[in-house]
Amino acid sequence: MGQIGEIVKNKQVILKNFVRGFPKESDLLISSENSINLKVPEGSNGVLLKNLYLSCDPYMRSLMSEPVDIAGLFPSYVPSSPIGGYGVSKVVDSEHPKFKKGDLVWGTTGWEEYSLNTSTDSLFKIDHTDVPLSYYTGILGMPGITAYAGFYKICNPEEGEKVFISAASGAVGQLVGQFAKLMGCYVVGTAGSKEKVDLLKEKFGFDEAFNYKEEADLDKALKRYFPEGIDIYFENVGGKMLDAVLLNMRIRGRIAVCGMISQYNLEKPEGVENLMNINYKRIKMEGFIFLDYLPEYPKFLDTVLPLIREAKITYIEDTVEGLESGPAALVGLFSGLNVGKQVVVVAHE
Amino acid sequence: MGQIGEIVKNKQVILKNFVRGFPKESDLLISSENSINLKVPEGSNGVLLKNLYLSCDPYMRSLMSEPVDIAGLFPSYVPSSPIGGYGVSKVVDSEHPKFKKGDLVWGTTGWEEYSLNTSTDSLFKIDHTDVPLSYYTGILGMPGITAYAGFYKICNPEEGEKVFISAASGAVGQLVGQFAKLMGCYVVGTAGSKEKVDLLKEKFGFDEAFNYKEEADLDKALKRYFPEGIDIYFENVGGKMLDAVLLNMRIRGRIAVCGMISQYNLEKPEGVENLMNINYKRIKMEGFIFLDYLPEYPKFLDTVLPLIREAKITYIEDTVEGLESGPAALVGLFSGLNVGKQVVVVAHE
Repeated sequence: MGQIGEIVKNKQVILKNFVRGFPKESDLLISSENSINLKVPEGSNGVLLKNLYLSCDPYMRSLMSEPVDIAGLFPSYVPSSPIGGYGVSKVVDSEHPKFKKGDLVWGTTGWEEYSLNTSTDSLFKIDHTDVPLSYYTGILGMPGITAYAGFYKICNPEEGEKVFISAASGAVGQLVGQFAKLMGCYVVGTAGSKEKVDLLKEKFGFDEAFNYKEEADLDKALKRYFPEGIDIYFENVGGKMLDAVLLNMRIRGRIAVCGMISQYNLEKPEGVENLMNINYKRIKMEGFIFLDYLPEYPKFLDTVLPLIREAKITYIEDTVEGLESGPAALVGLFSGLNVGKQVVVVAHE
Repeated sequence: MGQIGEIVKNKQVILKNFVRGFPKESDLLISSENSINLKVPEGSNGVLLKNLYLSCDPYMRSLMSEPVDIAGLFPSYVPSSPIGGYGVSKVVDSEHPKFKKGDLVWGTTGWEEYSLNTSTDSLFKIDHTDVPLSYYTGILGMPGITAYAGFYKICNPEEGEKVFISAASGAVGQLVGQFAKLMGCYVVGTAGSKEKVDLLKEKFGFDEAFNYKEEADLDKALKRYFPEGIDIYFENVGGKMLDAVLLNMRIRGRIAVCGMISQYNLEKPEGVENLMNINYKRIKMEGFIFLDYLPEYPKFLDTVLPLIREAKITYIEDTVEGLESGPAALVGLFSGLNVGKQVVVVAHE
């Protein structure tokens, strides 16, 4: 098997060892040792991808840990091997009928210059290129469907409802807030710096925003912005924020659990004490992942592409250049260094 | 206002002071000091009730605490005044067109021999008396609708699913387990004594049952009974049990939050650490209260009455005689002294 094509050097981002606690840039290393054949093995049904944009996402933290005895959504990374995630790539060679050389795709790929993908179920052809290609790592990719499904499907929002979003300037939060504003909700976001808070109010049109790091008492902060309580909480952080939110939820409130980034690097998660509120306030708290909503991707595009083109929705990316910048960008997510969606540019075309 | 009718002594159960922590029998006292006019004031739209059976329910604990700044479902009890709850009563006099002398009713009433009720929205006429009258404090009253709504409406159960129930021999749990068995589910319950565990298996037909007090590691116990995980958890206790259950929930599992009795007497609730499972397992955790399902009461009766008559469902009560036995019975709930639904018989007719 395999014909001989052009063999090129293939720079990669490698996981050194399984990570415990807070990940460090030095947990990852850049390797230039490997090469790759740019020709897909005949009959393999695979594609050979040139990776253009790589997406830094919080869920990737869990894949850096030693796998535990639970069925995770994705397999853990393998020490001494390249990590992977979502990205935008160009098809260099294809043995798959759905893809041809020159096609642009988004989906799962490796953190490397070129990837051979022989399981193309999670690759999606990009048909609309009048918007920035990098958007397919964010607003038009996994974070976009996540925001869409979480807000419209899990939260069942209604006009005029009071919406609170944590990690609100992130890849998902900034979209949820704008969806909520388009629906006529009152929207408050929280983030971890003045720059992000300004962005929420000035760029994304949130009604209010606050820096959680400056609030000694999160319960009091929430009561200030939600004197009548919260109808919808879009949960990205968990822990103490969730505990304070539970105290401020209204009857029949909904909590969409998208992520709990504040807990990912703790050896032992924080205990959440106010769950009794779920009972007597009849709160629905529901976890979801975008994979369950992929069949709705075409409908999602029909909704969001016009909003982007008509500038009714805006999207902020935090871009670094070069695979070498990848480890710092990825690790930076967990201290909130990114402002907006964190993207690594491997190649522009 | 008010005509003169027969004036009789009216024994009452009085809350001495607001309770903190675990309630004691001595937090309540029996008073024989009051009298009551058995004639309802004309034009008051009220009814005069002779109380027959009083229901001991865990939610009553929260009404014994000093009210906090949240909208509770029911007003807190007032120190030096009689407590109240659900009960079965006989109408002694009525100024309300819906009720006439001699009618049997269930609904909210006082812990006393006779109660004047001038707000009859939460009184329901009892039409079926071929079943024990006390059942209207349990299987045919608030706990019954609670079990019905929680299981069928919140859990969306399907045949063959794996169901776990805590406080499983209690007023609600014993019914949920039997509903689940009727639907063809695999049902495991937990309770706090051998007697209760035996009841679950031998009387209520649970597939398995265990005494949580004998398990050093609840996670391990659950893995023993649910090697493939739990689809539905009917939550009555909260705290450590919930934490262990979260580790054992299956993808798209459902948790109906009916109560969290293990937390009611703590000054500070236990922290629940495993909430991240909600996210990646796409768990729905939803609180509910029976009040939201009262419009379905007639449909509920149509379902449950035939099951009782055909002995397809059974119901165990723990009955004490006399209002004087009320305080010990009520307080006993919180140490699990009751075996089955705890009822206080004030009068047999």
